[in-house]
Amino acid sequence: MADPPPVFPPEEFRARTARLQATMARHGIDALLLTTPWDLFYVTGFLTRFWESPARPWFVIVPSGADPVAVIPEIGADLMRRTWLTDIRTWPAPDPRDDGVTLLADTLAALVPDGGRIGLPMGAESHLRMPLADYQRLTAVLAGRDFTDATATIRQVREVKSEAEIALIRAACSIAGRAFDRVPDIARPGTPLSRVFRDFQAALLQEGADWVAYLAGGAGPGGYGDVISPADDRPLREGDVLMLDTGAVHRGHFCDFDRNFAIGAPAPAVQRAHAALVAATDHVLLALRPGMTAREVHARLFARLRDAGLTPLGGRLGHGLGLTLTEWPSFSPLDDTPLRAGMVLTLEPGVELEPGRILVHEENLVLRENGAELLSPPAPAVMPVIGP
Amino acid sequence: MADPPPVFPPEEFRARTARLQATMARHGIDALLLTTPWDLFYVTGFLTRFWESPARPWFVIVPSGADPVAVIPEIGADLMRRTWLTDIRTWPAPDPRDDGVTLLADTLAALVPDGGRIGLPMGAESHLRMPLADYQRLTAVLAGRDFTDATATIRQVREVKSEAEIALIRAACSIAGRAFDRVPDIARPGTPLSRVFRDFQAALLQEGADWVAYLAGGAGPGGYGDVISPADDRPLREGDVLMLDTGAVHRGHFCDFDRNFAIGAPAPAVQRAHAALVAATDHVLLALRPGMTAREVHARLFARLRDAGLTPLGGRLGHGLGLTLTEWPSFSPLDDTPLRAGMVLTLEPGVELEPGRILVHEENLVLRENGAELLSPPAPAVMPVIGP
Repeated sequence: MADPPPVFPPEEFRARTARLQATMARHGIDALLLTTPWDLFYVTGFLTRFWESPARPWFVIVPSGADPVAVIPEIGADLMRRTWLTDIRTWPAPDPRDDGVTLLADTLAALVPDGGRIGLPMGAESHLRMPLADYQRLTAVLAGRDFTDATATIRQVREVKSEAEIALIRAACSIAGRAFDRVPDIARPGTPLSRVFRDFQAALLQEGADWVAYLAGGAGPGGYGDVISPADDRPLREGDVLMLDTGAVHRGHFCDFDRNFAIGAPAPAVQRAHAALVAATDHVLLALRPGMTAREVHARLFARLRDAGLTPLGGRLGHGLGLTLTEWPSFSPLDDTPLRAGMVLTLEPGVELEPGRILVHEENLVLRENGAELLSPPAPAVMPVIGP
Repeated sequence: MADPPPVFPPEEFRARTARLQATMARHGIDALLLTTPWDLFYVTGFLTRFWESPARPWFVIVPSGADPVAVIPEIGADLMRRTWLTDIRTWPAPDPRDDGVTLLADTLAALVPDGGRIGLPMGAESHLRMPLADYQRLTAVLAGRDFTDATATIRQVREVKSEAEIALIRAACSIAGRAFDRVPDIARPGTPLSRVFRDFQAALLQEGADWVAYLAGGAGPGGYGDVISPADDRPLREGDVLMLDTGAVHRGHFCDFDRNFAIGAPAPAVQRAHAALVAATDHVLLALRPGMTAREVHARLFARLRDAGLTPLGGRLGHGLGLTLTEWPSFSPLDDTPLRAGMVLTLEPGVELEPGRILVHEENLVLRENGAELLSPPAPAVMPVIGP
């Protein structure tokens, strides 16, 4: 059988590992212990939807001075052997007596001397993807080692994308752009929103998405209620604004942007608000530079919307993007992160038109030394109208 | 705007909560702290794909003597208010200074007296879906309370499905069954496997899946290599066996079964092995009874395959199913779980035909007092042939 080509050549992963190790050295970390789909994929290229099963934990260790080591369930050994990793240790999971804890502890003990520091992502936007009781057993067995928060290390490295990553995120954006172009054929007046969601996901697949990890949206007269609900069966009606927000996946990389559509001619206030959202986005796209902080981006979007006489939504107005639907940083008044060239970001300004009726717009971009480069095909300022 | 109808009426959630509270009482747990999509959905009916963003933690507390309390990011308040919960507390997440920890600690402190026990799933097949550093802050603030493993409590209750849950899992299985019926139109000789994966996902959506959370599979001459790989671009060829294994989601409930197809006439050994897999499954379907242990199910499948002259795969040969692609128990030699009426299970026998060439078959069922009831439309013993 042909092995599927790896997502990236080994040099890409070697470069990432070297950057991680340099950052670990600055933070005094002797080894990274990684447990999530995105961190394992980042270091190894190990790509599978099998993570959907919560049954088995998976581990990759990045030592300070050697190639990463995989400690994984036997069922994944063949797939991991197709990556650039050569040190792959397995156990027959699930094992209720010891689900990889001893193998992981032995591996870590050989890589990190007593008194050394093992770093895990423990901070914002991180999870520990293994049973908590097993983590407690691990730290008890390795009581001589210090388990410390390595979020800053991972974040420092993962936030800046390589050209190879940017190309895949751009491709995911193009796929979604082509699917959005087909929405006027999918979202006819009278079509239930649940049917629109199904057909739009099918369109994303037909346009080249490997899978559709995320779709949310809404439809309602002159705006929608929230942006995280699944679809109901209500038919689209004249006067509705329809919004679809998708995270389509191409070779493990996400896009994350939305588009708005008017079912029949939109009210002038809705059309004006949409144009203001696009204008605020365009303004920030032109202004973005490395060194600007995340909170400054929020402030600019917020001020533009307020100056247009609109009520900006609370919460963040954009975020990082890449191996997950959302990544650090957050465009919020609380995030001091300085932007760096190579960051892939979303601008996601939203306004409340009336209580319970909102409008949200979103674009994806990569920040270059000299400014922003759009990755999503830009939305028109005039909201597309789907006629009767 | 019309609110989407809740997946279940409040009585369903009240019954679940009562069962959880009775089990908590037996285990001496004063409150459950839940953090995962599946546990929150189980208790509240809160259904969103927004979990795909790792940015925000979400909490539901089940006190020993009162209705559950939600402690969630503001962005989810509207959606949570459509569930049966009335006590919904929110904070403006993400907040890098305090991402809900103080609100969660205050809420828990008021519900659980000093010296009391707060249970979380910490054991097999569980994760803590919040930053580990925030969990450590929480336990430090509530140092007078005992944080204990509540996996047994959750598992005891969630393993036995209600008729309402069974109906939705059956519906998910029917959707997948109709999509599998269309595979002969999708998987023509010469079609790249990646195209088959995309078109099969589109078929699942067209047949009624809300989304396709899982698709894996493989294709190769006389068998495939593993069952967790994403698709490559290799075209299907005469002599290949194609397997597709899907977890399609219907109103938050999963199916999980696969089907095998021969591209052109299969080798007699392949056809015999397929018939033996179906026969072993049928044998266990007839034998299954409450009180049988998970390991006995494994032993029966294993023996049947071995007696047919085949080499059974290592690892588990089936598992629980419901709110996630896989749930407890595991049909493995290490799992002593006694089966109970109301459990929804998969039988997933597999054999190795030659090194690196396997064949896996899977069906979904609900265990009744008097035996198994199939939920997946049964596979034919003779592998369907997709002609040239």
